[in-house]
Order: sequence, then C-alpha cells, then structure tokens
Amino acid sequence: MKCTVCREPAVIDLRRHNANFCAPHFVKFCRDQTATALSDFGMLAPGERVLVAVSGGKDSLALWDILTELGYDADGLYIGLGIGDYSDESGRIARSFAAERGLKLNEIDLPTDHGLDVPTAAQVTRRPPCSACGLSKRHLFDEVAREGGYDAVATGHNLDDEAAVLFGNVLHWHVEYLGRQRPVLSAHDGFPRKIKPLVRLGEREMAAYCVVRGIDYIVEECPMAKGSKMILYKEVLNRLETESPGTKQRFYWGFLDKQTTPDVPAETMAEKDQRTLAPCDTCGQPTTAGTCTYCKMMAKAKSAMPR
Amino acid sequence: MKCTVCREPAVIDLRRHNANFCAPHFVKFCRDQTATALSDFGMLAPGERVLVAVSGGKDSLALWDILTELGYDADGLYIGLGIGDYSDESGRIARSFAAERGLKLNEIDLPTDHGLDVPTAAQVTRRPPCSACGLSKRHLFDEVAREGGYDAVATGHNLDDEAAVLFGNVLHWHVEYLGRQRPVLSAHDGFPRKIKPLVRLGEREMAAYCVVRGIDYIVEECPMAKGSKMILYKEVLNRLETESPGTKQRFYWGFLDKQTTPDVPAETMAEKDQRTLAPCDTCGQPTTAGTCTYCKMMAKAKSAMPR
Repeated sequence: MKCTVCREPAVIDLRRHNANFCAPHFVKFCRDQTATALSDFGMLAPGERVLVAVSGGKDSLALWDILTELGYDADGLYIGLGIGDYSDESGRIARSFAAERGLKLNEIDLPTDHGLDVPTAAQVTRRPPCSACGLSKRHLFDEVAREGGYDAVATGHNLDDEAAVLFGNVLHWHVEYLGRQRPVLSAHDGFPRKIKPLVRLGEREMAAYCVVRGIDYIVEECPMAKGSKMILYKEVLNRLETESPGTKQRFYWGFLDKQTTPDVPAETMAEKDQRTLAPCDTCGQPTTAGTCTYCKMMAKAKSAMPR
Repeated sequence: MKCTVCREPAVIDLRRHNANFCAPHFVKFCRDQTATALSDFGMLAPGERVLVAVSGGKDSLALWDILTELGYDADGLYIGLGIGDYSDESGRIARSFAAERGLKLNEIDLPTDHGLDVPTAAQVTRRPPCSACGLSKRHLFDEVAREGGYDAVATGHNLDDEAAVLFGNVLHWHVEYLGRQRPVLSAHDGFPRKIKPLVRLGEREMAAYCVVRGIDYIVEECPMAKGSKMILYKEVLNRLETESPGTKQRFYWGFLDKQTTPDVPAETMAEKDQRTLAPCDTCGQPTTAGTCTYCKMMAKAKSAMPR
C-alpha cells in the first residue's frame, strides 16, 4: 500500500476518499480537511481567539493540535467531571499534553469548584448522566469563553459524531433539532460562537492522527455513556460504511447541502416566543428564567444531598 | 404468554404494540390494521374494484386474503417474470391460492406474452435486474388496471419495506423521492391509483398471518435481489428494532406525520415542466416520450438478443 501523494509506504487507507497516505501526508490531509471546514463554514476569522473544549480524548486533543499547527490562538478548557478514575486519567493526559507544548489549559474541577460531581448531580436530580454532564459542560464553556473574551468555543465533534446525532434525529424526526444541527452556531445574546472544525474527519482518522503525531489520549469511552443510543447508531452507521464506503459522509454532507434554513442562533430557533434574556441571579450568565438551568440543577442537587 | 384480548394462549408477541395475540385475535388485529390504513389514507371507496399485485410471496397473498375478507372486490394479477424455478414456483402458488378461494387471477407471462424474461431484458439493456423488473411490473399493472377498469392497484408493501425505502432515501437525501413516498398515490393522466394497505403491518406479522391462515407462500427471496441495498437496510432497521421496539413504526409514521407536501401525483411531481401525455405509439399507454420506457426497453432488448 503506497501513499497516493508520494508513493512512499502508506500508514492508512481511506476507502471513502479512495486514497492511502504516508504519515506526513496523512497529517497534512487532516490539517487540510480542518482548514477547509474552518473556511467553508466561516468558523474563525484571522486573529480571533478560540477556546478548545478538551476532554483528554483523541478528538479534542487532535483538534487542539491541528488548530495550533494551523496558527490559531487556541487555549484549552478541561472540566473535571468527577467520574472516578476516568476523570483522573483524562485530566492527567490533558495537563501533560498542554505542558509539553507550552499551551494554556484552563481548568475547572466540578467537585472542587462547584461542590458536586456529574454522577451525583444526575442521581439526585434524576437526570440521565449524559444530560447533567452536557448541561454542565455547555454552561461552563460559555462562562469561561465569555469571561476570557474568547470569540468561539471549538469542540472535537467529528464526522461519526455528527452523522450519529443526525441519524438519531432523523429516526425520530426531531425536525426542530435537525434545523439547528450545523457545524457552526453564531454567537448570540452573550453566548459565544460554537464551532466543530473536525466535521470532515472520521473517528478512525482522529485516532490515527493521534498515533502518528505521538499524542497520548484516553482510549476508554466515558463509563457513564455505556449502552447509549449514540453508540448503537455509530455501530449501525459503521455497518453501512463497511458495505458502502462514504455512506456517513454522503449522509451528513448531503444533509448540510439540503439545509435551507438560514443560520439562526439555536436559542432563537428553540424559543418560538422571543423572551428577554437577563443575567442569572446566581451566576450572571444570560438566561430567560431568573435562575439558569445549570444553577437550578446545582441548587436542587445540593439541597437533596446527604449532609 | 397469553392473548392480550382474551387471555387464551398466545401465538405471537408484538413487542412494539406491547401485546400478544391468540390466532383468531391476531387475524383480527391484521384486518383491523389494514382497515385503518385503508380508511386513514382514503385508499378505497365502497364499491371500487381493486387489482392486487400478486407475487406469490407472503405479503401479496396476505393482502389479497385480507381485502377479500374485508369484503372488497379484489382480483389478482400475477406476472411471470421468467426468473427460473423462482417464477415457476411462485406462479404455481398464486394459481392454487386463487383456485382454492374461487378468486379471479389475471396472468401475464413475460417470456410467453412479450417474448422476453427479466434476466435477459436486464442483461441486454444493461439495466440492474430490479430496475428492469420494476419497470415491467409497473407498466403491466397499469395496463391491466386500465384495460380491466380497476379503480386502484394494491401492492403488498409492508412497514418493513416502506421503512427500508425511506431509510435509503434519507441516507442519500433523495428529497424528490421523499416527497412522493406515501401509502396512496392518486390516479392521474390515465394511470390508476396506487395503494399500499399493509403499511401498518411488519414483515414478521405478514409471515405469521400466512401461517395462521394456512396460506402457502413462496418463502425464498427473489434470487435477483441478492445483495440488494434494501436487504441491508432491513437488517440495520431490524437491529435498531431489537434494541428499541417500535423504531421502524416511529420512523415511518413519524415521516408521514411530518410530510407537509400535498398528495400530488407522482408523475407530476417528477416532471417540473408540465409535458403533454399522449398514447405510446407501441402499446397505447400514456407517455410523454412518443414510445414509453417499457416499450423502448423491450425493443432494445429484442434487437440486442441473439437470434
């Protein structure tokens, strides 16, 4: 198997692109694909500062690496979720990645800084763990981005992630979610822009990128996500991809091509009535509800906890 | 396992309905579901004559049986496709089903009546076999319905079939096909109404219905369909259904609920420009092209055949 570009021995075959790459050309391919996504969707303008949501997994570390190599001013934010060994290990990995490269990693530890971990918050508020976790992460990314003056929050969602989410939304005809599933969501009402620069790259490619670049990452999936529908949808899409390489890409890109709704901020689309945003009375983040959902969850969780 | 209705021993469990049925109540369930589909979509008015497309498989024979039991004036049409033993066996089964019940079965044999079988037509015209077959069947159903004065052609497409077609169309974002995938297509321009009364019933239910009713049917799939995408999509949907019973039904019915386009005849939707239909110069069926696609395929096939 030879590199499609230089005919040296290849380290990876990409069936959906009908191409093979050696290590240097594969790294270039990943950077080019990311640069194309950034440019096609107008994700970042020159000189803008971006906050990368870093979990310690392959996608977020590869994203941070690529953005830095592409010359962007990219800091990281790691949130310790208090999910046992998984959180300890992913925090250690994120910290050493940043230290080795002299990058700035912001850190929040939910148990230390907010008095609560995700498993407990989920349990006492009777939310599914992934719901409590997602709510917490969105809230804290927004907060750090706003306070740190970042122009955008970048997450490591890849093609497999986006195709699986799209698959679930189509299977249930969640038309309201379909309308706002896009690689970039504009800033609005004090919330930062959200961007997904890895939407042109698959899960397998991100793992290979980390191996080739010598990036240590946490391989295990979050233990709270076991049995999640997303994992099932990814398996199903992988089956289709094996039979017909390019299926995921056609499915997701085809969806983006057909999207005719303009880029309306997510919150605005969700709320049919235009409600007034005001600072949360607890944390100061914009909310329509007096106290924001995150602060409500935290208050409820703390009051329900055994003392 | 007891029947949900009468508490007698059940013969089938329907997880997506959270119900079990004994034989008589299962038969009633299938008839009721068909009657609901007929009524919900206005498929047939009282006194209308319907032509059932009979393949000899479980769906078409169950459909014919149910329509007859519901009191409809339903004749059958069997088309011999010339696909070796498969066609011989399915013809024999269709004929004996009709004879035992005193029903009228129209018959066309492609090799005898039109001088060509589906495998040969596909081969010499370089069409995929399922394309040559579908084209032939649509053409001949239309012709017999028009000449016999039938108000509608009924096909045995079940929930699994429709969900799989929908799945393929969504995966490739064939929006133009999505717009015309409905359980009933109105009559237009000399073409009969097309109805799919089994869209509320799954493949497994139709097989069970035939067993319970003592209907002999051809179990093997058409040998030309091996490796078809529809079989792959059905497998994938079955995987999702096993994990979460009701997935197929939610997916397909949810789609029908969200459909906002009115019931525009298929041909009209396909043709952006309103072209004039005139009788085919060979067979007399309405066409926009002088000679219809079926007659063109047959002429091409015959001229390319070794003499």
